[in-house]
Amino acid sequence: MKTKIAVLGAGSWGSMLAAILDANGHEVQLWTRSAEQANELNQHHTNSHYIHDYTFSASLQATTDLEAALTDATDILFIVPAQATRSVAQDVNQILAKLGTKPALIHGSKGLETKTYLRISQVLAETIDPNHRTSIAVLSGPSHAEGVTQHDPTLVTVASDDFDAAKHFQKLFMNEYFRVYTNSDVIGVEFGGALKNIIALASGALAGLGYGDNSRAALMTRGVAEISRLGVSFGANPLTFAGLSGMGDVIVTATSTNSRNYRAGYQLGQGVPLDEVVSNMGMVIEGIATSQAAYDLAQTTGISMPITEAIHAVLEQKETVPDAIHALMTREGQTENG
Amino acid sequence: MKTKIAVLGAGSWGSMLAAILDANGHEVQLWTRSAEQANELNQHHTNSHYIHDYTFSASLQATTDLEAALTDATDILFIVPAQATRSVAQDVNQILAKLGTKPALIHGSKGLETKTYLRISQVLAETIDPNHRTSIAVLSGPSHAEGVTQHDPTLVTVASDDFDAAKHFQKLFMNEYFRVYTNSDVIGVEFGGALKNIIALASGALAGLGYGDNSRAALMTRGVAEISRLGVSFGANPLTFAGLSGMGDVIVTATSTNSRNYRAGYQLGQGVPLDEVVSNMGMVIEGIATSQAAYDLAQTTGISMPITEAIHAVLEQKETVPDAIHALMTREGQTENG
Repeated sequence: MKTKIAVLGAGSWGSMLAAILDANGHEVQLWTRSAEQANELNQHHTNSHYIHDYTFSASLQATTDLEAALTDATDILFIVPAQATRSVAQDVNQILAKLGTKPALIHGSKGLETKTYLRISQVLAETIDPNHRTSIAVLSGPSHAEGVTQHDPTLVTVASDDFDAAKHFQKLFMNEYFRVYTNSDVIGVEFGGALKNIIALASGALAGLGYGDNSRAALMTRGVAEISRLGVSFGANPLTFAGLSGMGDVIVTATSTNSRNYRAGYQLGQGVPLDEVVSNMGMVIEGIATSQAAYDLAQTTGISMPITEAIHAVLEQKETVPDAIHALMTREGQTENG
Repeated sequence: MKTKIAVLGAGSWGSMLAAILDANGHEVQLWTRSAEQANELNQHHTNSHYIHDYTFSASLQATTDLEAALTDATDILFIVPAQATRSVAQDVNQILAKLGTKPALIHGSKGLETKTYLRISQVLAETIDPNHRTSIAVLSGPSHAEGVTQHDPTLVTVASDDFDAAKHFQKLFMNEYFRVYTNSDVIGVEFGGALKNIIALASGALAGLGYGDNSRAALMTRGVAEISRLGVSFGANPLTFAGLSGMGDVIVTATSTNSRNYRAGYQLGQGVPLDEVVSNMGMVIEGIATSQAAYDLAQTTGISMPITEAIHAVLEQKETVPDAIHALMTREGQTENG
């Protein structure tokens, strides 16, 4: 059967993944709600609002018609914002019921659904009827879209409970500048991607205070350790957090001044009040909602997450950044592998 | 019993660890072979060849007399270069036999002994008679000495087979800018510190070729994965490599242009021939010897270490850096948690 992939969401990462699939010789339909964006992609082969200085192949087709995108699709890639996934998935479910097809699903969204704190694969699983889909996979890892435009060698993980599905998507996406590793730990891969922005925010705050390499590396390592503890309590494999979707993604996010979360943290570290930081940034700072989610989950599960608690206290304006660091540094001595 | 610590080795890290112990209120004797350096430390309280713009406390004493340093010492910190450890330890063994004392040992050296490929704690264990010592521990983690001079919050690991010894050294070193985690996995902690320079070298080479954040994060993650595989074959815990002495130290070393290994790799990436790189650097590039050690150990154990093999081929001038990267990227697809 010929592979036809519907890519739902044409932001920077969605359109780049569509470009990779297109470059690999697959038929791709890139869906967006914006007629203007679809026209620009089809006529000028650019996506200027999201990716600068990059021309897509003329073979990549964009559409605003979800049913057209899904018709004959063997695979669907969801890459809409985490909070929009449920609503798009509900529409997809209805169309698939009408079409009578049964595609494989994969998503590349990073986050937890607010309020439910469900992982994105859980949202897809409970929204799309198992009669209208096969397996569900997730793609994650250290991958700025801009790097992929320059063929910077990029490595990602595709996780699924179903090994054959993971292998299938590995084969679909992999090429000489985009290398895919399979992984069986969906929970761990999704937790890593969802919670990494907490560490980016904290890393920015350290830099804003003028701290250096030692503290940044320590923060990243101990930050991943506590995210891992939380993930493990939900059934994840701790080693997943040492992998591409865990530490790998944290390295890219927490060392890059391109990250919004890092930049927001930097301002907090410099002492700018939170409401000013939010208005300065002019866009969503995911790390704020994420640290609330992680804080709530830590409270519910009883998992020790001292860095998350410190960030939460700073965001709630109960503690200054220097006081939070002092409190973290003067806690009782701990064991690393306990 | 009063704590008196002999710190053997007055390089940048040895003298900073001595300064921490001194600041924590312990009696410290800092031993160096160089009379000039000892005089400078005692008279001017500086160590200008190793640490710029830093004045040590007047209470820190330096000496060239090893027996004086060891007399009444309750603890000995070895922090001489990896290849000098055996010879210093032999001298220490003789003096301890004469003194009749039985101190606890800890070291902070990163490397494997050449030819024997022994870890430093193994060198100490086979050189110093168990009648003249108690436990052996290792201190490692992401810690530029320069960061510690500025009280950049720094986190390290102290590992020992003997939990009480690890707790003892945790208490000795820990303060509000230097936080110590205990760990029971000596093998993992020593392998991480010894082999990190391979990744620093490769990270520099990627940067020298003009590659970006995605490939650097991927290299660091997959590099730690293969070092972990090797360590596990020698009995290490894989999770140790996700910790401060593994990924933490790799982050500091492979993202810092201060690292010699990174700078050497950068030149290799730019196409400078190896002999020119070595003469340009004018000092030892540990990553070269380390990658030979890791390559040999991989061959002996049959562990897959594709990044190490690629670096080895580049250093042997059997492959160019771009060809090595292409070969790595076009290998058969792998699983991440296999």
